[in-house]
Amino acid sequence: MKKIRLGIVGCGIAARELHFPALKELTDKFEIVAVTSRTREHAEDFAKLVSETLGSTPQVFNSYEELLLSKQVDAVDLTLPIELNVPFIKQAVEHDLHVICEKPISTDVKSGKELVEFSLQTNKVIYIAENYRHAFKYNKIRELLHEGAIGQPIFVDWHLWIGMDKENKYVKTTWRQIPKHIGGFLSDGGVHHIAALRVMLGDIEWVSGQVKRITDYLGDVDFLSTLFEFKTGVVGNYTVSYAVKGEEYFEIVGTEGKIRLTPNLIVLSGKVDEDIPLIQENTFKKEFEDFYEVLTTEKPNILGNPAEALKDLAFFEAAIKSKGEKVEIERLIKEA
Amino acid sequence: MKKIRLGIVGCGIAARELHFPALKELTDKFEIVAVTSRTREHAEDFAKLVSETLGSTPQVFNSYEELLLSKQVDAVDLTLPIELNVPFIKQAVEHDLHVICEKPISTDVKSGKELVEFSLQTNKVIYIAENYRHAFKYNKIRELLHEGAIGQPIFVDWHLWIGMDKENKYVKTTWRQIPKHIGGFLSDGGVHHIAALRVMLGDIEWVSGQVKRITDYLGDVDFLSTLFEFKTGVVGNYTVSYAVKGEEYFEIVGTEGKIRLTPNLIVLSGKVDEDIPLIQENTFKKEFEDFYEVLTTEKPNILGNPAEALKDLAFFEAAIKSKGEKVEIERLIKEA
Repeated sequence: MKKIRLGIVGCGIAARELHFPALKELTDKFEIVAVTSRTREHAEDFAKLVSETLGSTPQVFNSYEELLLSKQVDAVDLTLPIELNVPFIKQAVEHDLHVICEKPISTDVKSGKELVEFSLQTNKVIYIAENYRHAFKYNKIRELLHEGAIGQPIFVDWHLWIGMDKENKYVKTTWRQIPKHIGGFLSDGGVHHIAALRVMLGDIEWVSGQVKRITDYLGDVDFLSTLFEFKTGVVGNYTVSYAVKGEEYFEIVGTEGKIRLTPNLIVLSGKVDEDIPLIQENTFKKEFEDFYEVLTTEKPNILGNPAEALKDLAFFEAAIKSKGEKVEIERLIKEA
Repeated sequence: MKKIRLGIVGCGIAARELHFPALKELTDKFEIVAVTSRTREHAEDFAKLVSETLGSTPQVFNSYEELLLSKQVDAVDLTLPIELNVPFIKQAVEHDLHVICEKPISTDVKSGKELVEFSLQTNKVIYIAENYRHAFKYNKIRELLHEGAIGQPIFVDWHLWIGMDKENKYVKTTWRQIPKHIGGFLSDGGVHHIAALRVMLGDIEWVSGQVKRITDYLGDVDFLSTLFEFKTGVVGNYTVSYAVKGEEYFEIVGTEGKIRLTPNLIVLSGKVDEDIPLIQENTFKKEFEDFYEVLTTEKPNILGNPAEALKDLAFFEAAIKSKGEKVEIERLIKEA
């Protein structure tokens, strides 16, 4: 089996804590041969971590450019400040490399749309990593809905009270403190939730939203509440605060029952009464496995498709611009 | 103490099951001296009920007109199909009588607004009975919010899955099966919820909503989900279905805690952890007591004010017309 020679670009929290734990389980598929980071020390620390864990030492490059020119990698894994995603992806493709890049696709719909158009002009794979699309629970719920487990779905409600304090490691990231991406944490964290909702219930047609800024240390607005409608006619509320901490609430109501999602269970009630335990899984590992298959087989790039990532982001641009007005997602993308 | 001589007009479910149980506890304040109903038999049954319960028999009138002309009553209590509220209220006032009339104020904002304007031209009391405005729980929550029990309130969420079946006594009412009032049960039942939200959190500035029709036997659309904002900046979701049955969910989230409302408790958590038991009370009795005070003292008509009832109704006309667009409540009333 062919191993993909991977260059890690950006050696921050995501690379160390999210991607590397997945990649170290996938040494039959990926070989980390190169690393680079704005701060050379971070790249060296990361190379050391790889060396100590896997026994082979990747080469540390002084710059992204040097890494791209080295001819030592087949693909790059980008875990960067969001505003660098689009230019870094383009640069990789121009050097004839495949790319996996951590979500969100970009800082706003306009630049994300440009990337989607760019992705259609190349045979290189541009894979936007959205681990929620790979999660068992959301895919299982989609299956249950398709089986009619709650009759016709009518309504979904998701409230998240994430409540990050000043000492949170993500909050302390400089590029998150002065975000160039729309809505700061709202879009950065939120694309996961919209990806999950779209896995379960399909594309969203329009959204009406209102934002608030509750704290002064989260870089931007930090509360959002929305009303929206899926193309299927299912209506939803999605409310999230990165300022206030509290219990998460998730429910889908149908004509014949409902599905609740708790930290450990999918709870079905009504037509069917059943508790389905959530499985332990590493969704980052699943996403790299999918990326590998896309690179090495005929599998199309569906779960990492930039157009899908753009729809997740567009929800937030729409909701933030809305101020209570209805914003159609496709139209927002079309007119960007 | 002066007793108010009351004529009961309309002897349906509301008169028998909601108003009479309150009035029979208030024989020191009200004397039911006259009754009339479209179906004479209902009026006679009601007169018999009064007679058997209280020992005095009200006179049964063949028509509303005859009752109004009888000079036997000081005030009328109207419990009628909604479309009769405005003309019947006006007729009573024109015969120099005070009125208490069951909510909602009217079938739509335009006719409700006309009644509000009419009410400003008369010194007779026009009292729109909204028992939720008198409930301990909503007034207690308002108090808690004013005391800062959860810091700054940010968000309120209220989901009601009322789920009425075909055999429900309200569903079987002819005028509810072919409703002339906007949104059928959505406004008929819903004005209670908006009255309660306004007791707790003040006036609502705008709403964005979407409706659905899930069943074919509820006369009109039977599902509504909304995003809205109070004048204070608190954001809310209110979702209700008269088709689907399920557990009610009510929560107000603030910067320092939250309030949940369960069938038996107000549950405070965060800054203050406390369970406040709900009290047993007859809110209809409280509403008739308030009406009595308005009639017999200098107390202004605040809780039965037609302008307040109009705002409750306007929320629904706005939400139903919205289809996702932002509708400002005051503007809707102004332009009606």
